[in-house]
Amino acid sequence: MCIARKVAQFALTEGRNLPADVRRETVRAFVNWAGCAIGGARTPSADTAIAGLLALSGPGNTPVLGRSERLSPADAALANCLTSAADTYDDTHLTTITHPTGPVAAAILALADTRRISGAAFLNALAIGIEIECRISAVITAHGSGAHQGIYITGVSGGIGAAVAAALLLGATEDQIVAAIGLAAGQAAGLRATHGSMAIASPPAFAARNGLVAAHLALAGFTCGDAIIEGKNGLLPVLAPAADAEAIVEGLGQRFELLGNALKPYPCGIVIHPSIDACLDIASRVPSPDAIADVRLAVHADALALCWRKLPASALEAQVSLFHWAAAALQRGRATLDEGDQAAVDDSSIRTMQEIISAKVDDALPPGQAQASVTLKNGSVLSSIVTQTLGSLEWPMSDDQLSEKFQTLACYRFPQEATKRLLRAFWAIATADDVGALARSAALPCEV
Amino acid sequence: MCIARKVAQFALTEGRNLPADVRRETVRAFVNWAGCAIGGARTPSADTAIAGLLALSGPGNTPVLGRSERLSPADAALANCLTSAADTYDDTHLTTITHPTGPVAAAILALADTRRISGAAFLNALAIGIEIECRISAVITAHGSGAHQGIYITGVSGGIGAAVAAALLLGATEDQIVAAIGLAAGQAAGLRATHGSMAIASPPAFAARNGLVAAHLALAGFTCGDAIIEGKNGLLPVLAPAADAEAIVEGLGQRFELLGNALKPYPCGIVIHPSIDACLDIASRVPSPDAIADVRLAVHADALALCWRKLPASALEAQVSLFHWAAAALQRGRATLDEGDQAAVDDSSIRTMQEIISAKVDDALPPGQAQASVTLKNGSVLSSIVTQTLGSLEWPMSDDQLSEKFQTLACYRFPQEATKRLLRAFWAIATADDVGALARSAALPCEV
Repeated sequence: MCIARKVAQFALTEGRNLPADVRRETVRAFVNWAGCAIGGARTPSADTAIAGLLALSGPGNTPVLGRSERLSPADAALANCLTSAADTYDDTHLTTITHPTGPVAAAILALADTRRISGAAFLNALAIGIEIECRISAVITAHGSGAHQGIYITGVSGGIGAAVAAALLLGATEDQIVAAIGLAAGQAAGLRATHGSMAIASPPAFAARNGLVAAHLALAGFTCGDAIIEGKNGLLPVLAPAADAEAIVEGLGQRFELLGNALKPYPCGIVIHPSIDACLDIASRVPSPDAIADVRLAVHADALALCWRKLPASALEAQVSLFHWAAAALQRGRATLDEGDQAAVDDSSIRTMQEIISAKVDDALPPGQAQASVTLKNGSVLSSIVTQTLGSLEWPMSDDQLSEKFQTLACYRFPQEATKRLLRAFWAIATADDVGALARSAALPCEV
Repeated sequence: MCIARKVAQFALTEGRNLPADVRRETVRAFVNWAGCAIGGARTPSADTAIAGLLALSGPGNTPVLGRSERLSPADAALANCLTSAADTYDDTHLTTITHPTGPVAAAILALADTRRISGAAFLNALAIGIEIECRISAVITAHGSGAHQGIYITGVSGGIGAAVAAALLLGATEDQIVAAIGLAAGQAAGLRATHGSMAIASPPAFAARNGLVAAHLALAGFTCGDAIIEGKNGLLPVLAPAADAEAIVEGLGQRFELLGNALKPYPCGIVIHPSIDACLDIASRVPSPDAIADVRLAVHADALALCWRKLPASALEAQVSLFHWAAAALQRGRATLDEGDQAAVDDSSIRTMQEIISAKVDDALPPGQAQASVTLKNGSVLSSIVTQTLGSLEWPMSDDQLSEKFQTLACYRFPQEATKRLLRAFWAIATADDVGALARSAALPCEV
C-alpha cells in the first residue's frame, strides 16, 4: 500500500484520538502561531503581499489576522501564513528546520470562515497535518543528497500537511486524501535563497495556499497517482533518492514528530538561538559592552551554513545573521523584535560589535548548543557554554512565556485590553464552537 | 550581474523587437494552444478542477476558454492552462520536453480581461516568457543529476516564464521583474509521477497561477533575493548543481529556444510520436490489422522511460502509453483524440494488438526517431524507419494542419460556424486591439 494511503487511513481512524500531550502541544503551537500572525501583520512584507493579492484577486470575505482586509480563502491562507513567518519568530521542528504550524494552520483557518469548525476538530486536523509535514521533512532531510540545505523544507512538506488537514475538515474519503497528498506533493517547492528578503516568508505561505487548493481539487474528484510520494518519478525519488519512504508512516500514532517542535523565544533563525543564549549570559556578566575586546563563537555547522551573514543591510537580512544577533545580545542584553528592526540593524554600536565577533564550526557541538568566549579589554576572559537553549525541547517556553510573547505581538495591532481577551480566547480553542468566529475576532474591523 | 537581472534587461530592451520568424512561430504556438484549451474544456479533468476551484474561491469574472464558468484571475490562469494540457495535445520544446506555451499564455490571458492588452503586446510577452522558460529548462535538463527525468520540467520553468511575461504586461520595472522571477523560482515544482492521472495537467497549470501571483506580488513591492536562479541555495544549485547558469542568457535575442518548440499532431506524449508515424506507415501497407503477428519497436530511451505503460486502464494512462498508441495506430490507421478516449482504451482489438508489441531502446536513435518491424502471419516482414516525425522541427505542422486541429478541438464546444470565426480571430491576434475580447469570444456564455 502506498505511503499516501497509509497516511490517509491513519488520519481517518486512530488519528482521530491523539494523546493528551500531543493535543496540549498543538494548542501551544497554535497560540504561538496566532500571536506571530497577528504581530507579523504589521510588517512591510504583509503590506506588500496583501496589496499584491488584492491587485490580482480583489477583496474576498476571509479574514487575515491582525489586518483589516478580507481576501479570498486561498489568498487568506497565503497571507495568514506569510504574516506568521514574517518575523521568523514562529516555530521550528528541530531535527529538520521545518516551520510546521504556519502552512497547516493558515490553510484550515481559511476553511473555518465559511463552515462551522469546532476547536476540537480544528486542533485534530492541525496536529495530523503537522505530524505528516514533519515526517516528510524528516525523511528528506535525513536522506537528501545534500541539496536539502538549499531546499526550504517547509515549502516542500508544508503543503502536504496542509492538504491532509484541509481534506480532513472537508470530509474527504480515503481516496480524496490520497489525491490531495499527491496534488500537494506535485507543488512542493522552496529555496533558502529567499533568505534575507521578504520572500523568506513565501515558501510556507505558498505551501498553505497549495495545500488548500490541493484539498479542494481532490474533493471535487480530480485524480492524482497513488504513489507520488515514493513511486517512480515521485517526490522522494526526485528530492532524496536514498530516502526511506516507510519511515514516513513508521510508528504513526505512537511516536510524534510534533513533540519535536520548538516554539521560538527569539525572532530569528533557530540555529542562532544557542549563540544568543550564550551572549545574553555573558552580557549579564560584563560591566559594559564597551569593555568587550574580542568575541569568539563556536557553533554547529547549520548556524553558519544558514546564517552566515555579517553586517546585514536590512532587518530581513538580520533575521538570518548570526553575527547581528550575537552582537545585539551582547550590546543590549536583550533579543526581542526591537533587536531585529531596521534601527537595530543601523545601530552603530551593534555593527561595531559584529566587527570583533568571529565564529567557527565545532563539529563536536550538536545543533542546539553553542559556546562563546569573550575577551575583555582588561584581558580577562568570560565564557559561556550553552547546552540547553531556551525554547529547546528540554527547556521549552512556558505557557506564561508564550502568553507574554502573544501579547507583545498582538499589542502591535490591538489595544492592550483586547489582546488579553484574544489571548484567553486562543488558549481556549480546544473548547471553541466556531474557529471562524475566533479568526474574525483577531482581524481588524473591515475598512469601508 | 545576476541571471534574473540579465533576463529582465533583455525583456525590457531588445526583447521588445523580436525577429519575424519568432513572432510568426509565437502566433502558431498561441493558435495551437488556444485550440487545445477550448477542446480540453470538455474533459473530466476540466470539470473536476473547475468544480474544485469554484468550491474554494467561488465565481469570478475571468473567462475560461470553452467553458461557461467565470473564475478569479488566478483560478482562470490555472484552469486555462490545465484544459490546454488535459489532452497532452499542446506542444513540446523538444530538447527539454517542456510544454512551454500553456503556463505563459494562460497567465497573461487572465491579465487581459481587466486591462486592454493589444495582440502585439500579448504576443511579445508570450514569446519572451516562452523563451526564458525553455532556456531554464535547457540548463536543468542538460546538467541535472538524472533526477530531472522525474521532475516535470514545465512545472519548474513554466512559472518563471509566466512571471516574466505577466510582469512585463503589468509594466514592471527591472527590479520588479527580478523579484517576480525569484518568487516564481521559489515555487518551481512538478513531478512526472502525476502521469497517468488527471494531475498530468496540473504542473503546468499550477505554474501559470504561480507566475501570475509572483508578478503581482513583485509589482506591489514584495522583495526576493536577486540570485535565486543561480546563487547559494538557489534553483540551479538545488536541482542541477552542475548547470551552467550563464547559458540561460547566452545569445539571448540571437538564438531562440522558442524555435525548438514543436506543435503536436497526436494527443499523447511527444516521445511516442515517432513510433506512431512508423505504425501509421505500416498500417497503410498491411492488408488488415488482423494480418499482423508480431511488432517490434526500436525507440529512444525517453520513450520507454516516460511512456512505458502497457494495457493502460484509463484514457489518462493511455496518454503516456507507447504500446497503446502504437497498437491504436496499427489497428485503426489513425492517431486522433478518438484513439485516446476510454472507448479506445477498452477496444479489445487495440488491447490484443498491444500484447504482440515489444519495444526496446536503441541507443543509436536520436529522440525524434523510431523503427518498427512488423511480421505478418504469412511470414512477410514490413519495416518502417522514421527519421523525421510529423510535428518535428524539420517537418512541422503546416498552418492548414493547425487550423484543422483547432477546428476539430473547438467543435467539441462550439457550433462549426463559430469555430471558423474563432479560428480567423485567433490567427489574427497580432493585429487584435484587445486580447480580453478574444478570450471572451472563446468562452461559452455565462450560465445564470
